[in-house]
Amino acid sequence: MDQFGDIVFTLGAVGALGAAEPWDAGAIESVLAAYKGFIDTEVAPTNAPADRVGCHVLDGRVHLPPALPQLYKSYVALGWQLLPLSVDVGGIGAPVPVCCAASEMLSGANHAFEMLVALVPGAIGVIDRFGTEAQKAALIPDLVAGTALATMCLTEADAGSDLGVIRTSAAPDGFGCWSVSGEKIFISGGDQDLSQTIVHLVLARTGPLADGVKGLSLFACPSLRADGTRNGVSVVRIEEKLGLHASPTCQLRFDAAQAHLLGQPGDGLKAMFVMMDHARLDVAIQGVAHAAQAHTLAVTYAGQRRQGDRAIAEHGDVARMLAEMEALTLGSRAMAYRAAALLEHDDLAAFLTPVCKVFCTDTASTVADLGIQVLGGYGYLPEYGMEQIWRDARVTRLYEGTNGVLAMSLVRRLLGGPGEAAFVAEVDAALALAPSAAARDGLAAIQQDWRTAADTVLASHDKGRAATSLMALTGLLYFAACWVRLEAADPGGEQGERIRRLGRFVRAALLPDAVALRIRCQALAHADTEDA
Amino acid sequence: MDQFGDIVFTLGAVGALGAAEPWDAGAIESVLAAYKGFIDTEVAPTNAPADRVGCHVLDGRVHLPPALPQLYKSYVALGWQLLPLSVDVGGIGAPVPVCCAASEMLSGANHAFEMLVALVPGAIGVIDRFGTEAQKAALIPDLVAGTALATMCLTEADAGSDLGVIRTSAAPDGFGCWSVSGEKIFISGGDQDLSQTIVHLVLARTGPLADGVKGLSLFACPSLRADGTRNGVSVVRIEEKLGLHASPTCQLRFDAAQAHLLGQPGDGLKAMFVMMDHARLDVAIQGVAHAAQAHTLAVTYAGQRRQGDRAIAEHGDVARMLAEMEALTLGSRAMAYRAAALLEHDDLAAFLTPVCKVFCTDTASTVADLGIQVLGGYGYLPEYGMEQIWRDARVTRLYEGTNGVLAMSLVRRLLGGPGEAAFVAEVDAALALAPSAAARDGLAAIQQDWRTAADTVLASHDKGRAATSLMALTGLLYFAACWVRLEAADPGGEQGERIRRLGRFVRAALLPDAVALRIRCQALAHADTEDA
Repeated sequence: MDQFGDIVFTLGAVGALGAAEPWDAGAIESVLAAYKGFIDTEVAPTNAPADRVGCHVLDGRVHLPPALPQLYKSYVALGWQLLPLSVDVGGIGAPVPVCCAASEMLSGANHAFEMLVALVPGAIGVIDRFGTEAQKAALIPDLVAGTALATMCLTEADAGSDLGVIRTSAAPDGFGCWSVSGEKIFISGGDQDLSQTIVHLVLARTGPLADGVKGLSLFACPSLRADGTRNGVSVVRIEEKLGLHASPTCQLRFDAAQAHLLGQPGDGLKAMFVMMDHARLDVAIQGVAHAAQAHTLAVTYAGQRRQGDRAIAEHGDVARMLAEMEALTLGSRAMAYRAAALLEHDDLAAFLTPVCKVFCTDTASTVADLGIQVLGGYGYLPEYGMEQIWRDARVTRLYEGTNGVLAMSLVRRLLGGPGEAAFVAEVDAALALAPSAAARDGLAAIQQDWRTAADTVLASHDKGRAATSLMALTGLLYFAACWVRLEAADPGGEQGERIRRLGRFVRAALLPDAVALRIRCQALAHADTEDA
Repeated sequence: MDQFGDIVFTLGAVGALGAAEPWDAGAIESVLAAYKGFIDTEVAPTNAPADRVGCHVLDGRVHLPPALPQLYKSYVALGWQLLPLSVDVGGIGAPVPVCCAASEMLSGANHAFEMLVALVPGAIGVIDRFGTEAQKAALIPDLVAGTALATMCLTEADAGSDLGVIRTSAAPDGFGCWSVSGEKIFISGGDQDLSQTIVHLVLARTGPLADGVKGLSLFACPSLRADGTRNGVSVVRIEEKLGLHASPTCQLRFDAAQAHLLGQPGDGLKAMFVMMDHARLDVAIQGVAHAAQAHTLAVTYAGQRRQGDRAIAEHGDVARMLAEMEALTLGSRAMAYRAAALLEHDDLAAFLTPVCKVFCTDTASTVADLGIQVLGGYGYLPEYGMEQIWRDARVTRLYEGTNGVLAMSLVRRLLGGPGEAAFVAEVDAALALAPSAAARDGLAAIQQDWRTAADTVLASHDKGRAATSLMALTGLLYFAACWVRLEAADPGGEQGERIRRLGRFVRAALLPDAVALRIRCQALAHADTEDA
């Protein structure tokens, strides 16, 4: 089965179709097939050239590689920006898991372009939930029509993971709006030449610095003022990066920029989290997308490249790498789609979202790294496309909360909370579906390792040292649970045999890590006592 | 202790000083300190700029970034090319482990430059062993003086890991030399503007294609003919690469190039292996160098960057990452230096060299990856230097035999041979040195896991599927053994406490992987039987 077949199968296997009413399986598959046509013909060809050309600033404005404004025109003309938007605002209102499937295809074909358009649904959601009627009327139609795109402006130079020390400030301007001043860094799509306007969602301080995160409020700051003049937002520079050269990562300066307060002063963090949770699952999907791309490239290469009398795909170590890439891709996709299907369950979603973000993005790096290894020396050359995947995927473990910061939040905040109970029940539900004794025993064993490790870490003094190991074990447990769902959904025939073969491989090659992670959690939770 | 202090301590800890006679510890430290002065002031500043500028071809000749010809002039003026060359040929004749220490400093400061100069000792060794007196007299003095550099021309477009299908051919030219024709790819330093001439060591066919590797012979093919005219060697192009932009990776065409046969027709592979074994240990050292650089950068950054009221180095998850980077760096360095000290023991060296190459280069990627994670978003930006380490280090797992190919040679050729017995004795010797029960038990446990896994894989039908896991476990065992040597060499005081603390960390966080690797080897060796 190709990537598209796997996507459709996985949506069914994780129960994402049942949750998609009134859309039925046929409607979903048709929409995704049409989307795939757009991806293959219009998006994918832009990926390598746009990365090679990169972005530049001219006369204070960002210019993207020329292929992207053209692509965006086509994207809007075909109305694809409407897919995830609710019917209320004039969108198509596709169910979340369907949007995830579409997003996987888009991110895989051009991660940079996906980032430029991906914040619109979250921005509309925040404005719709926190904005006044006048704000909604002023901001949402352009976002729906595609004449506006959105950014998320959080990070400042000395406040990476620590929003409490944000210094950008806002004060009423005396004309019913607010005036925002300060500098933000790492703003994806901070400027571009795709849309006429940009709606910057800016976290700024309305209380004293001593109030920490409680003094933060969220503002919508359009790049044009109500009177049509340019607002006080300027690009200081574009950051050079390891990858994603077609995505303009901007340093932005706000000079008394006219802005609209969303919700009440002090609501900033709450409003931002609405947007970030959405973004984090999207990052998990970006991870799946890179894994799938890397696997597709590697399978193609290894099937064509011969050594001795066989394709290298048949050589033992290469066959093992390809199986590892395939099993990781299928399992991480199942995790992300399942989490998307469960997004309405608040406690569970709050637990699953960071777990999927970390596991799927770590998986992306692992699979891309294996992909380079399968290609050997050719993996190191740009023309084979694998090194771009490796570079682009790397950022997903850094943005929307580094994977380390999310691991810390797991051990400090989520474990022992209501999300944990919901997570345990979710794994139990998968266990009950196990189609074989081997599948059941495999999942039960890792469930036990996880319980032991989680209890040990929870009871320890310094939870930080074991955080990443416990996060990895939690992800591996959920990966195993989702693999049981894939096996239980047996597609029959050759595909059923393939899924069973990969399921065995998961137990043989991937789940044994659980034992090491459990031992590591136990040892790190009690570190520095061994020889004492 | 800084990198230099660690290097000197490690040389002593792994017994590399005793083997260095007549050089004593004081002489070794003085030479290395002088070398470090050259590295810090002249080499390190070229690293980032040279990578940014890259190489280009003009009028058929390769031009390096301008900083490198200047640097090379200084390198030769100071006589540093003489350090590893034997006294017989006019060199300084530094002991191999001392050369490794120097090579680590050079590779860490500029991997691309190191590659340009690193093949000279191996080339002299091959010419000295296989060449006639006339060939030695014609070729070696320029290599010693630095007016010539060397390349190793093996790979062809359809013969990556499979030398048996090499098509470049050679025939006697009727004037006492040979005439070589064909195309080679991935030739590091295939052309450059550092040295007046280049001695290409070319593997070419003197027998029919059906003879496979037995029909291969090794030739020395200087870039200038004996009469001073340019030889028939031309640069087809420079390969664009993910990293190492200052290292010209060339596609070379040989058109009836005048060449000197080294040794007898058919001796090619034997001669090439003399050079490759040397090169493989050098690649292991490159891995150590990148790990050490990444660790130094990360420690500096994490000590300066504050979050809340503490430097991030003190945050649990960051502290864990820094410890992992430090423990991996120290242990992989000890492995490579120890292997260097044992290079005269043929069977053991043949076993240890690929094990160290794989472990140290995998470690380089792991440590650089952790380094990016410690820096967060800044890790993704070129100006912090970490992403260059990550890109440059990646190639070490691909060249001089991909790590997968070396893993296959471990399970197919080395296990069960005389090298294995020597390796077991080498680990036993470390076990006898264990300075604590915890250290002894930790090493003994992984030794047992390794034995079980190795026996299982040896007895299995398809050794390929478990090859990489067994190679990883073999590397981890040797890493553990070398860590015991580091602990046993207790430097006392604060440094002694640091080594003990890291030793505990190794057992808590790194050695548990052995259990997972053993289970994985067992499962993969008997794959596809679970549910049958």
